Amino acid sequence: MRKFHPYAVKAKEAGKTIYHLNIGQPDLATPQAFYDAIRTFSETTLAYEASPGMPLLIEAIRKYYAEIGVDLDPSDILIMTGGSEALLLTFLCILDPYTEVIIPEPYYPNYTTFVNAAGGRIRALPTSAEEGYRYADRKRIESLITKNTRAIMITNPGNPTGVVLSEEEMRMIADIAKKHDLFLICDEVYREFCYDDKFGVPTMGRYRDIDDNLIIVDSVSKRFSACGARVGCVVTRNKELQAALLKLCQSRLAVATIDQLGAAALYGVDHAFFRKSKEEYKVRRDTVVRCLRKIPGVKVEEPMGAFYVMASLPVDDADKFQHWLLEEFDDNGDTVMFAPGAPFYETPGKGINEVRIAYVRKKEELERAMELLAKGIARYQKEVMGL
Amino acid sequence: MRKFHPYAVKAKEAGKTIYHLNIGQPDLATPQAFYDAIRTFSETTLAYEASPGMPLLIEAIRKYYAEIGVDLDPSDILIMTGGSEALLLTFLCILDPYTEVIIPEPYYPNYTTFVNAAGGRIRALPTSAEEGYRYADRKRIESLITKNTRAIMITNPGNPTGVVLSEEEMRMIADIAKKHDLFLICDEVYREFCYDDKFGVPTMGRYRDIDDNLIIVDSVSKRFSACGARVGCVVTRNKELQAALLKLCQSRLAVATIDQLGAAALYGVDHAFFRKSKEEYKVRRDTVVRCLRKIPGVKVEEPMGAFYVMASLPVDDADKFQHWLLEEFDDNGDTVMFAPGAPFYETPGKGINEVRIAYVRKKEELERAMELLAKGIARYQKEVMGL
Repeated sequence: MRKFHPYAVKAKEAGKTIYHLNIGQPDLATPQAFYDAIRTFSETTLAYEASPGMPLLIEAIRKYYAEIGVDLDPSDILIMTGGSEALLLTFLCILDPYTEVIIPEPYYPNYTTFVNAAGGRIRALPTSAEEGYRYADRKRIESLITKNTRAIMITNPGNPTGVVLSEEEMRMIADIAKKHDLFLICDEVYREFCYDDKFGVPTMGRYRDIDDNLIIVDSVSKRFSACGARVGCVVTRNKELQAALLKLCQSRLAVATIDQLGAAALYGVDHAFFRKSKEEYKVRRDTVVRCLRKIPGVKVEEPMGAFYVMASLPVDDADKFQHWLLEEFDDNGDTVMFAPGAPFYETPGKGINEVRIAYVRKKEELERAMELLAKGIARYQKEVMGL
Repeated sequence: MRKFHPYAVKAKEAGKTIYHLNIGQPDLATPQAFYDAIRTFSETTLAYEASPGMPLLIEAIRKYYAEIGVDLDPSDILIMTGGSEALLLTFLCILDPYTEVIIPEPYYPNYTTFVNAAGGRIRALPTSAEEGYRYADRKRIESLITKNTRAIMITNPGNPTGVVLSEEEMRMIADIAKKHDLFLICDEVYREFCYDDKFGVPTMGRYRDIDDNLIIVDSVSKRFSACGARVGCVVTRNKELQAALLKLCQSRLAVATIDQLGAAALYGVDHAFFRKSKEEYKVRRDTVVRCLRKIPGVKVEEPMGAFYVMASLPVDDADKFQHWLLEEFDDNGDTVMFAPGAPFYETPGKGINEVRIAYVRKKEELERAMELLAKGIARYQKEVMGL
């Protein structure tokens, strides 16, 4: 996803303004509590924190989970350098060469890097735009399980699809993991961003019969608009896995002290913050979907959660189109960036004309970005595709 | 090394004061520049930094290296979450199953965890206390090289031994790496802590004929007494490795933004800071070595760098002795902690009666800690060993 960076730099040097919808970097303000908290740090020596994490932060996270109906012991929470380290260390613990993780595609492309770094492989569970990227199909999931399968992994709400599982679907996937004795890795970093009230604040953490299977990956990045803090955690009640993860945590010594102090303060922020953020993103989702539906040939399903939407564009190749948007196109000096779809798929040839749009900008900016996309498609079809 | 933590907690709950010489956590003040810099952060959104690192920090590190005679391009520097992430990502890039890294033992035990996580194995280059733990012996090193060897790794100055290589030894090891086409990983985080002026500020970075072999692991933790910042870097001029590391860096998105801002300021601190730190540690080294030499039966070599010393104690088992010191011993309510030696060795049975002492406390505290060690040994010999 970051491979377009040098082209974007060139476009900017050439005087273009880029509407960035390519990275899930929210523009909302980080709560002031974070900045206030880090300013209270008064030790003269900036020392290593405890390897499992700062007790103050672990307690703040425990309380947060209790409020959403998940009862945890402090030892069930291990603080990580973002959801990224949470994923990497988890895969390093549970995967061996040739073992597999079943993941519905399209999925967050960095999963592939982490799984491969741990020696494992991703087994993609195919979905389709026509079915709204829904993947909770018992038969399809079970058909992929082999003796090499070590885990099922889901992102709920989904990145890049915005799919949110129903309670029945969550329960069914939990049952599959339990029945086949597999780890169930749930990336729940977008948990607070569900636009339909029926989903509540979804988490697998409430099912107590899968204590030995469940691994929740979490982060303050999206929830509190604090991506640069690099503070996340792994939540698991599996004691053996806790011990293995703790060993890796001890080896890398600690997570940054001051960011943990700030993150602990974030968890103390009034929950009205979640509600306001969600309302803002809902307006943005509605804006993007409304605009996309007006562009001839664009296909899009309304996402129910997270802050991404997948769309099929009437172009031959979204990657080529993105290069063209940066190098050949502008409208009054403006152009637009999104994430081409193919890297979100494991299956070769899929997602070629799809894009992921991160609706992480203000309504007016999104409207302008969608106008740029419409104009770009029209000109690209004419000038490059010869339509 | 952190396995004694729960016993230490218990000892403290029982009212004991513990003199901690077990972890390389310096007590010197972190330069105020760090705290001042992080307070200048004024963005409303705490966003992801660039994956290779904050340009301001990369430039600060480039300048620092130029001052010690190492000419680098900004792209030769990749910012990491401490030396720990630098090590883990390096091993993930260069190791495959069954490949080996040659490391002189005793060595920093976390190397084992990182090498194993990457699927590789450590091939220990044995040294002995009698030879002052010196390892730069061409024949011995070359005798360990096989078709599976991927890298030679050294820590210079050494942790836990304090060994510092001479210029000739460094050049010889560089020659071996070049001749056998191996990576040469140099953990140089203790570079500024050499107590004999003849060593200068040692770095392999000055040898330009090993550009494709050399990987330097670096960190602000010890240099600036800023362990909790979790900011380090990998320095390599090998373009292929840079690309592989960058891919992993992009997958984990970024290093904490505010800590990078603070770290950039650290590199601007007057070099008098290094001189003062070194003078302070020299006094501490002299204190510890002088005290250790007075304890009957203790064997110790004067370390030339870093802030550790290995010592053989006249006890049957340093691990057992450490448990006893926490659970059974006190002198006016005080006891002492060090790191038992065995985990620093790959070879089974080695280091059983050795300990690593981190002289990271004030002179008076070190004197008291050595007094506790002396009293502890005497009582342990009598009460446990029956001497």
